[in-house]
Amino acid sequence: MRHARNETHDPALTSWVQSANGHAEFPVQNLPLGVFAPSGGSARIGVAIGDSILDMRALAEADLLPDEWQAVFRADALNPYFALAVEQRADVRRQLSRLLSDGANRAQLEPFLHNASACAMLMPARIGDYTDFYAGIHHANNVGKLFRPDNPLLPNYKHIPIGYHGRASSIRPSGTAVRRPHGQRKSADADAPVFGPCERLDFELELGAWIAGSNDLGSPVPIGDAGDHLAGICLLNDWSARDMQAWEYQPLGPFLAKSFHSTISPWVVTAEALAPFRTAQTPRPEGDPQPLPYLMDADDQAQGSFAIRMEVYLSTAQMRASAMAPVKLSETQFANMYWTLGQMIAHHSSNGCNLQPGDLFGTGTISSPDDGGLGSLLEMTRGGAVPIDLPGGETRTFLLDGDELEILGHASASGCVPIGLGSCKARIMAGQPSA
Amino acid sequence: MRHARNETHDPALTSWVQSANGHAEFPVQNLPLGVFAPSGGSARIGVAIGDSILDMRALAEADLLPDEWQAVFRADALNPYFALAVEQRADVRRQLSRLLSDGANRAQLEPFLHNASACAMLMPARIGDYTDFYAGIHHANNVGKLFRPDNPLLPNYKHIPIGYHGRASSIRPSGTAVRRPHGQRKSADADAPVFGPCERLDFELELGAWIAGSNDLGSPVPIGDAGDHLAGICLLNDWSARDMQAWEYQPLGPFLAKSFHSTISPWVVTAEALAPFRTAQTPRPEGDPQPLPYLMDADDQAQGSFAIRMEVYLSTAQMRASAMAPVKLSETQFANMYWTLGQMIAHHSSNGCNLQPGDLFGTGTISSPDDGGLGSLLEMTRGGAVPIDLPGGETRTFLLDGDELEILGHASASGCVPIGLGSCKARIMAGQPSA
Repeated sequence: MRHARNETHDPALTSWVQSANGHAEFPVQNLPLGVFAPSGGSARIGVAIGDSILDMRALAEADLLPDEWQAVFRADALNPYFALAVEQRADVRRQLSRLLSDGANRAQLEPFLHNASACAMLMPARIGDYTDFYAGIHHANNVGKLFRPDNPLLPNYKHIPIGYHGRASSIRPSGTAVRRPHGQRKSADADAPVFGPCERLDFELELGAWIAGSNDLGSPVPIGDAGDHLAGICLLNDWSARDMQAWEYQPLGPFLAKSFHSTISPWVVTAEALAPFRTAQTPRPEGDPQPLPYLMDADDQAQGSFAIRMEVYLSTAQMRASAMAPVKLSETQFANMYWTLGQMIAHHSSNGCNLQPGDLFGTGTISSPDDGGLGSLLEMTRGGAVPIDLPGGETRTFLLDGDELEILGHASASGCVPIGLGSCKARIMAGQPSA
Repeated sequence: MRHARNETHDPALTSWVQSANGHAEFPVQNLPLGVFAPSGGSARIGVAIGDSILDMRALAEADLLPDEWQAVFRADALNPYFALAVEQRADVRRQLSRLLSDGANRAQLEPFLHNASACAMLMPARIGDYTDFYAGIHHANNVGKLFRPDNPLLPNYKHIPIGYHGRASSIRPSGTAVRRPHGQRKSADADAPVFGPCERLDFELELGAWIAGSNDLGSPVPIGDAGDHLAGICLLNDWSARDMQAWEYQPLGPFLAKSFHSTISPWVVTAEALAPFRTAQTPRPEGDPQPLPYLMDADDQAQGSFAIRMEVYLSTAQMRASAMAPVKLSETQFANMYWTLGQMIAHHSSNGCNLQPGDLFGTGTISSPDDGGLGSLLEMTRGGAVPIDLPGGETRTFLLDGDELEILGHASASGCVPIGLGSCKARIMAGQPSA
């Protein structure tokens, strides 16, 4: 991973967009890219700056961008941006930083700012393939304990960044309501399954990684180059129907228990923005195997993770009716992962599989080693056995209709202006029966 | 499934393209759609007719197609065609049938024919999501026996059309060489895995189903409407790295063991072309559970399958050097499946998952109950324990570099002109190491 710190991270840098200065999510040191629609307008690429969004299509149309970026920023999705080389993406960042920090640009650019609260955030890209990993070892341990108390981690876990192909079509941006899925489930004492609404609807706290560039089919990405293929990250809620999952997942893995909906935060926080927050992962326990050579890289070992704190908040219909604030369910650190994003990229392509600009990886659920940082209700409630208490006297084992989940993430490091990933939020609504 | 027989299947119908009459694959009763590039030309949609391909883009440009089809047939992929309503697709077929059977059209259309042997066949569509099912019960039984001799079928198998998400980016048309993947494998007596070229490379004989139309997220496709979402079929070879699969697949299913490459036949044989070959599946054994109501439909039960015979041929480098013909490894019937394509469509969307035009389903490996119709080397060699004999004195447990696999499929029914699915063929070549 090769992104050095540069002037775009200078803590002294401020923006002429006043709301950006001191903004918890989108100061001028962040500059995430996304796709939005202003009120009554069509989809276009924007840059989040404070409480505003800079309309990149309008800048392109006003000839305020270099020629080579015209096609990239007139698109209605970030796929052409994701196809740029790493140096080109760094150049985009440098120029955006200049445009939004130098007060001389204010008069010219201010007309191209939209009030973010009046815009709809859309999917940032057309996802080619979506892959979900399982790289959160504490989650794997916690879930494994429920099924195999004596042997929670399978023998491959510490050798392979375990992953599986997921459904791309049903990924939606933050804010889109989630319909409770219907499906087959079978209780242990029943003779046969029944079909009906999921009764064990759960969330999973994950990060998403947007893939940049591509490799030809048959040509793996070496781990040393993996960083060039990380365009940026988002927050990801991998909604999970636990009762459906338990019944369907043998022998080929989760399917309909996941594919009904996944929610992402709409802003792509770029690898360049994340550079100062690079850090080593939590060290592997003494005695754990070394990764095989194709997964080993000194730089990846030293700073293959990010110092990102992630939090999950829940609000129920009753809580909202009582004007109660959402309750924090969990707080964890991205560095708790067992495998880095670079290792996931190298592993995924190690068989020759071709990655494409706009592919999305999920990290898998990121739990911390302690009970305060569990990334799913399955873990918090010990498989549904121990309900959690909510403010106002409610309890939950799994999610009810009307419940709203929000995941937040913030990167911070000494001497740096912290940046946020935005919000990954959605509310559960009743589903439709299959006819 | 609602496609009645009509005049486009009249056995007396012939084409003014002489090579079509009596053609084993592409008589005028077939009319499959695909995407091809003539020598020196760009990608365009074509219709296979005998040994020729009718250039649909050229017809559109010459104003020989109805206005509403202009955009569909000027595209370089079949996605817009897959987005048409079922009645529109039937109309396309009727008009193509008239164009290619009525000799009055010969002079006008002959300039738009290409010699198929001089054209490159390309991917017929941009695949949105690819899902691979496991609906061949004899395969599931045979593979299950290798791992669980006393209990080969898992308890969910006869209730759920088991499936999993697959990798779309690495699907290639017939003729593209397959690089042997590298990956992790671990033998039972080894302490740790090693990384290197796959040593147990296998094929899997499947059918692919191209999805037409779409359903909104949250709105399942009822089984009674599932037929409208079947655009057509192709042959599919789901190449499988058995050693990598065995080590990686717990608990989330196959991943890199499959995603290095899948091969499809390039022609989409439409649901309309297949209508006369509809048939019931092989009846379920006495005592098997009834499908749950969301998977039950009288028409689907009566004729949810197709009378398609599928064959697998192997030729090795040594056989080709000795001018020996490929050897038939297997012959099976599509009707051996336990679940219909309609049941797969209804099940896949039953949780609200949105299907899209150009999604591709694999059926899973289709083996017959007898040893002459096994759909993979894993089954033929009893997990690699019993090599098979080839002409010329060679043996195989799994595939070697230079081996070439071909899958063929033919539909036939009493009183009908038989049609073919074309060829699904590819040769194994050595892979590249991961750096």
